[in-house]
Amino acid sequence: MISVSEALRIISEEAKPIGKEKKELLLCNGLVLAEDILSKDNLPPFDKSAMDGYAVRSSDTEKITAENPRGFKIKGVIKAGQWCTESINAGEAYKIMTGAPIPLEADCVIEVEKIKTEGDIVYLYNEVKKDNHVIKFGEEVQPGDIVVEKGTEIRPAEIGLFASLGYKTIEIYKPPVVGLIITGDELVNIDETIGKGKIRNSNEYAITSMIRSLGLEVVSFGIVKDDKDVLKKVIEEGLEKTDIIITSGGASAGDYDFVETILKEIGADIKFDSVAIKPGKPISFAVLSGKFFFSLPGNPLSAITTFEQFIEPLCKKVLGKQDYMKEEFSIILGEDFKVRRGRVKLLYVKIVKKDDKYYAYNIGSQSSNKLTTISKANGVLIVPEDYTEMRAGEKIRGRFIFK
Amino acid sequence: MISVSEALRIISEEAKPIGKEKKELLLCNGLVLAEDILSKDNLPPFDKSAMDGYAVRSSDTEKITAENPRGFKIKGVIKAGQWCTESINAGEAYKIMTGAPIPLEADCVIEVEKIKTEGDIVYLYNEVKKDNHVIKFGEEVQPGDIVVEKGTEIRPAEIGLFASLGYKTIEIYKPPVVGLIITGDELVNIDETIGKGKIRNSNEYAITSMIRSLGLEVVSFGIVKDDKDVLKKVIEEGLEKTDIIITSGGASAGDYDFVETILKEIGADIKFDSVAIKPGKPISFAVLSGKFFFSLPGNPLSAITTFEQFIEPLCKKVLGKQDYMKEEFSIILGEDFKVRRGRVKLLYVKIVKKDDKYYAYNIGSQSSNKLTTISKANGVLIVPEDYTEMRAGEKIRGRFIFK
Repeated sequence: MISVSEALRIISEEAKPIGKEKKELLLCNGLVLAEDILSKDNLPPFDKSAMDGYAVRSSDTEKITAENPRGFKIKGVIKAGQWCTESINAGEAYKIMTGAPIPLEADCVIEVEKIKTEGDIVYLYNEVKKDNHVIKFGEEVQPGDIVVEKGTEIRPAEIGLFASLGYKTIEIYKPPVVGLIITGDELVNIDETIGKGKIRNSNEYAITSMIRSLGLEVVSFGIVKDDKDVLKKVIEEGLEKTDIIITSGGASAGDYDFVETILKEIGADIKFDSVAIKPGKPISFAVLSGKFFFSLPGNPLSAITTFEQFIEPLCKKVLGKQDYMKEEFSIILGEDFKVRRGRVKLLYVKIVKKDDKYYAYNIGSQSSNKLTTISKANGVLIVPEDYTEMRAGEKIRGRFIFK
Repeated sequence: MISVSEALRIISEEAKPIGKEKKELLLCNGLVLAEDILSKDNLPPFDKSAMDGYAVRSSDTEKITAENPRGFKIKGVIKAGQWCTESINAGEAYKIMTGAPIPLEADCVIEVEKIKTEGDIVYLYNEVKKDNHVIKFGEEVQPGDIVVEKGTEIRPAEIGLFASLGYKTIEIYKPPVVGLIITGDELVNIDETIGKGKIRNSNEYAITSMIRSLGLEVVSFGIVKDDKDVLKKVIEEGLEKTDIIITSGGASAGDYDFVETILKEIGADIKFDSVAIKPGKPISFAVLSGKFFFSLPGNPLSAITTFEQFIEPLCKKVLGKQDYMKEEFSIILGEDFKVRRGRVKLLYVKIVKKDDKYYAYNIGSQSSNKLTTISKANGVLIVPEDYTEMRAGEKIRGRFIFK
């Protein structure tokens, strides 16, 4: 049995991107850039107006004041998307829309809020400086500039930026496909009635949802009977077709022997087979020719807890993310808490924010089979091994769940 | 022009769920429950073991101590999913796996870590209390109990819970379909070279990504030319086929007249047509027979800013979410900041967390056409109207972006 931090250290060490691939731009949100993105153009590709207003020659506006306004003849209107081939002369102005190109000879824009018009004359009440409200050619980006660096997580802003640079596809770190194997002779499908000794297969649904929340594809191998040969075949198939295999159930002291035997038979390198955490002790992690294998406990709450604690960081690091660990922060206990001594405990709580501080409140039994518990919680306290009684007002590290 | 808070108040008042629908369980992550979920069963459906261990009669363990251990005959093994029809007698034990049903007459489980075995005898070294490590029939939930209430946001825990209760579909608040109309004669498709006066259509990509990040379906009407009749037709089609229409571009002082005229002609109720925010002033919001309409500025950064500030809360409230506003918090300025007076400003910054506190740093020009700006930022400072100079160490409210 190893500590939580040691388990996370091992996972960080093993987890790496599994490859790169070109992907259509709109499918890249949340993924990580595997190439530097260079500009092919000058952006903006011409001097353009930053405002709705009037384009004039700044030299024509000298000594204009509120007391001494000056009228300019409006030569026409330039809208965004139009290209003006005429230039302006002294005493002339073009009405110009945001994003429209500045006409030749003009070098500044006066915003519509600061002028008055009368017929085809626009009156200015102040001097206007050269380049006022003009976004200059290439001001933002020039050809060959690295606009976004490799390793950047792609968000809607980057997607818009890559579109503006003319990229239809970009190279990202390949998202791993996750295979899910549910074991347990006690399991029946969710539309069946629960006979004697049986329970419904809830883990497939909870774990599938968690994997999809990470933006990853799930290949579900359904419920596999507790039979070594059958399970071995499915694990082998899973390792062939997917990048990360998760089994749930069959990981308690008795059943895990099965999985351990199989892993040894197929030559997997078992990195750990239990972690000092409650709930979730019987979690194991193995690697085999660049593929990753996790065996999760069958108890629903343990399975969810260990998925978030260990598998989610692995998946994020494989995706190429730099911030792959769950974000922890300090939480003030809103009331007293009691726990049993031994193992780091993840205590499900209700976290409430007040005046920018976080407070934790009890939500009842923490029995590791109770999905009703976790359904009332929005976070966990990470209670160190030696703690037993904690008083309201004390601070404990914790984190949000499903976030 | 109205204030940001007034705009948000109006949006909150108008935004409501647009209906309910039954949806397949695995598609409900992130949506909101529109019905109470009742249990049809007792959970667990039988007394079951919470541990791997040995099931015995607690009365047989009286006065057992480490100095005075007692041996029990192992009658067999009960695995999860098996149903034991035999009962145990005095001095007998069943080996039992986590999740397996407790055999008749047995009433407690001693965990495998606390015993020793020799052949078919298991030795106990302490007394075991009735119900030790037994999860009792119906302890968690009984038939008719409300397990999760209407209005709850569905996460993987709830999906697992509903599966365990035998629900294949559940009733959720209908996710709105969002229609996207991009206007502007200056726009070309992203695989075209940018001719004179033209720019590539980046907003369609950025906004589509933001809508999909909310889990919503986008119907894109592509780039529509700046022609009132054409635009009117597309807006009418959009209002017919989707629930929320967003136009981008054509919302600056000059062009907005178009949109405003169309909205008036089709009888829409314009709730506001500009907000005192920078970037993003020319945003308008209208409603028409239960549909929602937003017109966003065409500048990429303004479009992204106003989407997050106004449309995201609306979408979340329409989905039935209780926490639909962006979460704000206090941020310490990591360096000095200067801004121009007037309008609430959303200042794009890099937020860094250190010792559970947030610090903000400059990322350069905030020009509203620069996607490169927002690409360097992970948050915004919400700078009040009258602020101009802010010193390192001061606190300002702010929030993360794309989160």
